[in-house]
Amino acid sequence: MSAGPPLTRLVQDLPATVPFVAPDAIERQMGKPLRLRLGANESLFGPSPRALQAMRASLDRIAHYGDPESFALTGALARLHGVEKENIVVTSGIDDLLGLAARAFVETGTSAVTSFGAYPTFNYHVVGFGGELRRAPYRNDANDLQALADLAHRYHARLVYLANPDNPTGTWHSAQAIEAFIERIPSDAVLLLDEAYIEYAPEGTSPTISAGNPSVIRMRTFSKVHGMAGARIGYGIGAPETIGAFDKIRHHFGVNAVAQQGALASLDDRAHIGRVVASVAEGRRDYEDLARSLGLNTLPSATNFVAIDVGSSTRARLLLSALQEKGVFVRMPGAPPLDRCIRVTMAPAEDRAQFAEIFREIWHSHDHARSG
Amino acid sequence: MSAGPPLTRLVQDLPATVPFVAPDAIERQMGKPLRLRLGANESLFGPSPRALQAMRASLDRIAHYGDPESFALTGALARLHGVEKENIVVTSGIDDLLGLAARAFVETGTSAVTSFGAYPTFNYHVVGFGGELRRAPYRNDANDLQALADLAHRYHARLVYLANPDNPTGTWHSAQAIEAFIERIPSDAVLLLDEAYIEYAPEGTSPTISAGNPSVIRMRTFSKVHGMAGARIGYGIGAPETIGAFDKIRHHFGVNAVAQQGALASLDDRAHIGRVVASVAEGRRDYEDLARSLGLNTLPSATNFVAIDVGSSTRARLLLSALQEKGVFVRMPGAPPLDRCIRVTMAPAEDRAQFAEIFREIWHSHDHARSG
Repeated sequence: MSAGPPLTRLVQDLPATVPFVAPDAIERQMGKPLRLRLGANESLFGPSPRALQAMRASLDRIAHYGDPESFALTGALARLHGVEKENIVVTSGIDDLLGLAARAFVETGTSAVTSFGAYPTFNYHVVGFGGELRRAPYRNDANDLQALADLAHRYHARLVYLANPDNPTGTWHSAQAIEAFIERIPSDAVLLLDEAYIEYAPEGTSPTISAGNPSVIRMRTFSKVHGMAGARIGYGIGAPETIGAFDKIRHHFGVNAVAQQGALASLDDRAHIGRVVASVAEGRRDYEDLARSLGLNTLPSATNFVAIDVGSSTRARLLLSALQEKGVFVRMPGAPPLDRCIRVTMAPAEDRAQFAEIFREIWHSHDHARSG
Repeated sequence: MSAGPPLTRLVQDLPATVPFVAPDAIERQMGKPLRLRLGANESLFGPSPRALQAMRASLDRIAHYGDPESFALTGALARLHGVEKENIVVTSGIDDLLGLAARAFVETGTSAVTSFGAYPTFNYHVVGFGGELRRAPYRNDANDLQALADLAHRYHARLVYLANPDNPTGTWHSAQAIEAFIERIPSDAVLLLDEAYIEYAPEGTSPTISAGNPSVIRMRTFSKVHGMAGARIGYGIGAPETIGAFDKIRHHFGVNAVAQQGALASLDDRAHIGRVVASVAEGRRDYEDLARSLGLNTLPSATNFVAIDVGSSTRARLLLSALQEKGVFVRMPGAPPLDRCIRVTMAPAEDRAQFAEIFREIWHSHDHARSG
């Protein structure tokens, strides 16, 4: 027996880390179920009833492998976006797509640009393939497009990550600003444009991108407004050469059959999506009112969550743990200056009211309300 | 805009290939649904009713992300195998696990050993990470353990792939033979022991492996006897250092919530598994009788499929296409000398009878019965 498994040097040297501590892990740590699960930006308005029905029906054929080409879904997505099937790859969520992009574009020493405190799973995959992260601080609680483009040029980056609308802030740039950004990054870099929250954003947020442009991969998911996070399904839109490269390396049978059927049905239920978007917009006003009534600001949000500025990271941390004691799961951004906020996922009205009550009580009764 | 996406040289140079043409793709090519789907070794006896019920119930929480640790399932699997949770990683099928293993152990120039004509997805991932395949021919329609071990030594292989029972032949080695093989491969290589079909095999086929042994990763799936291929779930059992390394690189939210719940319930329904195994054993006799009645041999099988020796690859190819014209999907092994066979998945009695009728008719009426 050898001393240990013969790992590659790269994998051997990686830190033991996970991108996120999951809500389930928090429940296990607490030893009881969460009362309010407001930390993972899931859609607590649930999936489309049509999607649910399609998923239920798909279980009758669960003994069969799903379609590795996601043929029907890919076709529907191509029609929706006015592109060809060759522009689409269906994956088990955006996380899977980030892993594919890292594998396709990153090798030891490759630079990849992102904002400091942005989505950690991008970082996880870049580091996992030996890449070097170059991070631009947020500016006025938004991604600093000029700084990101400058970093990409300075370090000859191959990948640039940008979430628009952004997570964890909720802020966003206009389609025009994104289009200008695409022009500004190096011509031999690829922008991973994470549009997980795009359905919640105002008209004029999603840029026009030529389907043949090899410099951008647009990323979408069924985990947010479609309410299907547990099903694991998302997709990328990119140039045929990029999608073709992903087809050479992806886990072809990775997307489960239930998710494919659910996604297809959900795309057809625009009314459900419209209702969720309207409910989320209404709910954001509730969270903003709650914050204001306690003398706090919120960051502008075009997503299904609101970042409440509680003034300091010490205070945010204390609030998080006080909320958790009451069975309320929220998150705080991991890096300054955003870590002065707590990030609260949108929920139906009665859950919002419950959150407001608990949050007010904690705010008024704990020391941290007056310290920090 | 640049000339093309800035792919790594490795990915750029990979061939455009997929490990399998899926049954769905064959249906699209035919323009009609398959009458008998006997080519993907799915369990046509279906999943456990308990698993189905659990999957149906899990859809109520599909808006929530699943547990990236598959905590409950990992615990149940650890108990089942008499190992610790640190020995288990749950993945979206064995294919996902093969990809993880290739990423963890293979870099440009690394040798990996397998049998010539064995499971293509192993090859796909090894090549995808820049590895060199070293292939030992089958011997008497079984994996040639001595030749595999010799190749591993000769090429200083890091990975050795072995399916036991084997796919596409159905043949198997005893636990003792596998244990001796593990001793015989280089001490700094890792054996990927694919036991996808192990539940169908006689007692005494699955070797005893110390849970701390870093030289073996045992691979299991819910796609075969559990009848949940569409759910995409499987797992690996290995040394804690190996599982820990996989945790540093895997797609943490890759396994869907429906699959986790189904798998957990299916593990509890040993009676269902027992019934499927008994039905498959009975069905194998039918396929063997059918072959014999046409003057053909079958390969011994400890799986849910039977390889029928039709004498030549030309004849096998003709039969495959004649069957497909009748709406019957079977596969043939891709490489000599196995490509003189067609591989037929086990099905319930009425489907077997239908297959027998169609196969006889084709056999008696086509030229290839007398040529080749």
